[in-house]
Amino acid sequence: MRLGGQLDRGPLHRRLAQDRVPHRGGDRAAAAPRRPEPPPVGDALDRRGLRHHPVGHRGVRALAPGRHRRIGPRDHHLRRGIRRRGLLGRLVPGRGHRPHGHRRLRPHVVVQPPLPPDRGPHLVLVPGATGIRADRTDRTAAHHLLEEVITVSTHPVLDWSRSAEHLRRSHGVTTDPRPDEDGHYPCVLTRGSGTRVYDLDGNAYLDLTGSFGSVLIGHAEPAVVRAVTDVLSEGNLFYTGASPRRLALAERLLDWFPWSEQAIFYRTGSCAVSAAARLAQHATGRNRVLSSGYHGWHDWHLEAVPEAKPKTFESYATEFHNDLALYRSWLDRHGEEIAAVVVTPEPHRFDHAYYQELREVAKEHGCLFVVDEVKTGFRAGAGGFSALAGIEPDAVTVSKGMANGHSISAVVGQRQLTQELSEAHVWSTYQNEQVGFAAALASLDFLERHDVAAVTRRTGEAVRQGVLQLFAEHGLPVGAPGWGPMFELDFDAADEGLAERLEAALLRHGIFCDTGDDFNMMFHTAEHTDELLERFAAALGDL
Amino acid sequence: MRLGGQLDRGPLHRRLAQDRVPHRGGDRAAAAPRRPEPPPVGDALDRRGLRHHPVGHRGVRALAPGRHRRIGPRDHHLRRGIRRRGLLGRLVPGRGHRPHGHRRLRPHVVVQPPLPPDRGPHLVLVPGATGIRADRTDRTAAHHLLEEVITVSTHPVLDWSRSAEHLRRSHGVTTDPRPDEDGHYPCVLTRGSGTRVYDLDGNAYLDLTGSFGSVLIGHAEPAVVRAVTDVLSEGNLFYTGASPRRLALAERLLDWFPWSEQAIFYRTGSCAVSAAARLAQHATGRNRVLSSGYHGWHDWHLEAVPEAKPKTFESYATEFHNDLALYRSWLDRHGEEIAAVVVTPEPHRFDHAYYQELREVAKEHGCLFVVDEVKTGFRAGAGGFSALAGIEPDAVTVSKGMANGHSISAVVGQRQLTQELSEAHVWSTYQNEQVGFAAALASLDFLERHDVAAVTRRTGEAVRQGVLQLFAEHGLPVGAPGWGPMFELDFDAADEGLAERLEAALLRHGIFCDTGDDFNMMFHTAEHTDELLERFAAALGDL
Repeated sequence: MRLGGQLDRGPLHRRLAQDRVPHRGGDRAAAAPRRPEPPPVGDALDRRGLRHHPVGHRGVRALAPGRHRRIGPRDHHLRRGIRRRGLLGRLVPGRGHRPHGHRRLRPHVVVQPPLPPDRGPHLVLVPGATGIRADRTDRTAAHHLLEEVITVSTHPVLDWSRSAEHLRRSHGVTTDPRPDEDGHYPCVLTRGSGTRVYDLDGNAYLDLTGSFGSVLIGHAEPAVVRAVTDVLSEGNLFYTGASPRRLALAERLLDWFPWSEQAIFYRTGSCAVSAAARLAQHATGRNRVLSSGYHGWHDWHLEAVPEAKPKTFESYATEFHNDLALYRSWLDRHGEEIAAVVVTPEPHRFDHAYYQELREVAKEHGCLFVVDEVKTGFRAGAGGFSALAGIEPDAVTVSKGMANGHSISAVVGQRQLTQELSEAHVWSTYQNEQVGFAAALASLDFLERHDVAAVTRRTGEAVRQGVLQLFAEHGLPVGAPGWGPMFELDFDAADEGLAERLEAALLRHGIFCDTGDDFNMMFHTAEHTDELLERFAAALGDL
Repeated sequence: MRLGGQLDRGPLHRRLAQDRVPHRGGDRAAAAPRRPEPPPVGDALDRRGLRHHPVGHRGVRALAPGRHRRIGPRDHHLRRGIRRRGLLGRLVPGRGHRPHGHRRLRPHVVVQPPLPPDRGPHLVLVPGATGIRADRTDRTAAHHLLEEVITVSTHPVLDWSRSAEHLRRSHGVTTDPRPDEDGHYPCVLTRGSGTRVYDLDGNAYLDLTGSFGSVLIGHAEPAVVRAVTDVLSEGNLFYTGASPRRLALAERLLDWFPWSEQAIFYRTGSCAVSAAARLAQHATGRNRVLSSGYHGWHDWHLEAVPEAKPKTFESYATEFHNDLALYRSWLDRHGEEIAAVVVTPEPHRFDHAYYQELREVAKEHGCLFVVDEVKTGFRAGAGGFSALAGIEPDAVTVSKGMANGHSISAVVGQRQLTQELSEAHVWSTYQNEQVGFAAALASLDFLERHDVAAVTRRTGEAVRQGVLQLFAEHGLPVGAPGWGPMFELDFDAADEGLAERLEAALLRHGIFCDTGDDFNMMFHTAEHTDELLERFAAALGDL
């Protein structure tokens, strides 16, 4: 039985249906050729395993020529200036280099990121300036040179040949309906450290995706790495599910959501929401679910992704597309069939009163109210989005940001819901992996100790405002709705293709993002807001 | 639409429906009080963090009294004998101990498992003999003492007070519909090393569950630990999905299943089979799935777990309960609606010809044939069960044993199936975790280098035969159908309650298993077959 016919779907839903899925498929593939091919670049590694890129032409021209000299390890002011920007870790002496196709040796700067020196191939090289006048080796000169270093470093001289080769080899053997499948991105990200990700070719990017928002406190955060390492030698998975780490994490989650009574664990957000839906069915003896927003890829929720829906499959879930009138009328007509209302917060579209009203109406009809906080649960700070909105749900589902990229998710709820576990058969083999618990405990420690939510809200808002200002300066009608810690770009009023061109330009200028998805701030971005906006500005000048 | 009415369900299905789910719920809870309460035991840790258990009475009585002396570190023959049995790692000098409620000090043996000495609290102590006659300190004496050590160590003097306290605290806060929920087991397993698991109270058990069969090469196998540790500092998850580890693992899987063309990855077995079902729908343009066996907890498969099924939910999947006549008739009547046949191998019930016939009939009707090798894919050796049965499916789903307890699963199939990815929307955030790839690559190395499948088949068969012989000797009508590497106990002809009593006795005698589930052999069991059977024999004498 289906509760309604064809509906007017909200704008977000339309994007999901019309833009997002093809966006990862055919449309993007067609758009791909517009992206300029990376220029052929010398690819040799020197004896130290460092890669040398030639200097981009614009960077070279922008330098005032004068007496040239190499920039050496004693140029403390340069190194300090570079460090202060949080851009680069260590300045090492440049050496003469013969770029591919050029006859003349050019001195250049080699900059290493703050990484263990034994990590060989993923050192990042920033092609340096051709020279600097000797009489300007003061702080101003240092600053100017640094500007040039940055300008040069963000020039479209990125070499993606290894990534390209890998994608060619990989696609036939293993694939994934994610951006990489259609060569959406020319690079293959293989390493991360803090806010930065690095591709197979050694290029570095500021990461605005946070791996779908799951890496909230920075890639390879040492506290999380240590916690997981400690677990491994004790074994990861046992037949009994209870464990001190599970208990400790559950207690932390009950503190985080103070209205909650029990926490149960899964590996993915999709699974947690699926479990919550079934638990609600058992707790209420009702069979249908009324939902809005995206809740993962499982069958019950396919109505949100019409392309994926087999023709004759009918789910027990119905979308109300955030249409409050429709929501009310469905509950009035079918309230006693609805086990739960499941909503994903969209703080950039609806105010808190909207969610309070959703909850109130659900309660009037005896439905459980579940907030899908997979994205917002930790990004929003203690209590998740629910606390911001001033509501107490019957359960929340959480995952992203809980364990900084390690797969774990949870249903945190009232005992009324979770007590139905034995009957509802919502369990699986890997539910109690110790790695996930350890990673989550270390991440929650970090979130609380550093007040990550407050920091990302502040820095994220600065980035959001900065981005909006840059769009305005360039006369581009692009919006940035959302919160600081998680906003998206709105290209509705912009020329077709701008989203793709911008994404490609940002990539060339050292920013990794998906202009069709959220921009997820990470904790460390506090240090990198200026750099991010500088790179953004450079990209807008190079669309 | 449903293809058939109420059916005669096969014996396994009946067990699933009638036994297994309540088995984890009410029935077991009711049966629990039969289990004897652990006796009160001194629980103090000494300065070295070692726990001292008093000697079990039967063990003490069994020793011929004589001149007593402590067993010291120079008793090489003892240590060698102990090592040869694979039971214990290192003999450390015993010290006088005043057991709770006893006045006289008793010398005893303290035995450490082969673990890093800095692992403090999880040292395992085996209560030792009260003494040994000086004139018997030869190999025979060593052997006799060893017998005693084993006898004493397997006595029902286990202290589960910490586990009990943990379960009491834990249950209200976090729970899980797995055996621990209802106190099915009195112990909480928190550490594993090789074939052994250890509970919160420091008791050691030979693990016959292999954590649901997923830990195939031993808990905390160092090669896997190293591989995962190496990954952590490079970051675990990135926005792009392709990576050298994913490609390497996919290539390994295509070698493992030589007929296959592509591999795609998920975190759990349930998710992999769900993805395969949807991919088949997209690949064929048909909507229904015909299945037998257990394929996880997701909605489409709820018919296999009737308790969990909301009353009005209708899935696109139909169980044929391994009824070949029914299978044929459904395909004859509805063949062109069936996208795929999905079967879980049950080698203890059906021969290879049966699966060959299933495949043949499916192909006649243009259905894809998917073998759910989540349990068998690696346990059965290269090619999985499909290779043993001489069939080439269109896809297999694999998970357990692939990454030795780390959550990863895969659909390995023909490109016809996997190419539908973009359309089928079967992706999720954590699909490309590096930890899973690294753990799987290290595990596959190990599986191939040590021919794990052959070893577990050999040792498992020895255990299965040994267990059958012991049941016969004790006049217990219990069967052990299955393969060596994975068999189950059949209590159909036995007294009610025997399964529970046996499980409790095995636990007291240092064997951790679930008599209602598979007995999964691990690789290291090669070294421990004798010990396992000795413990089993002791448990049968103590039912």
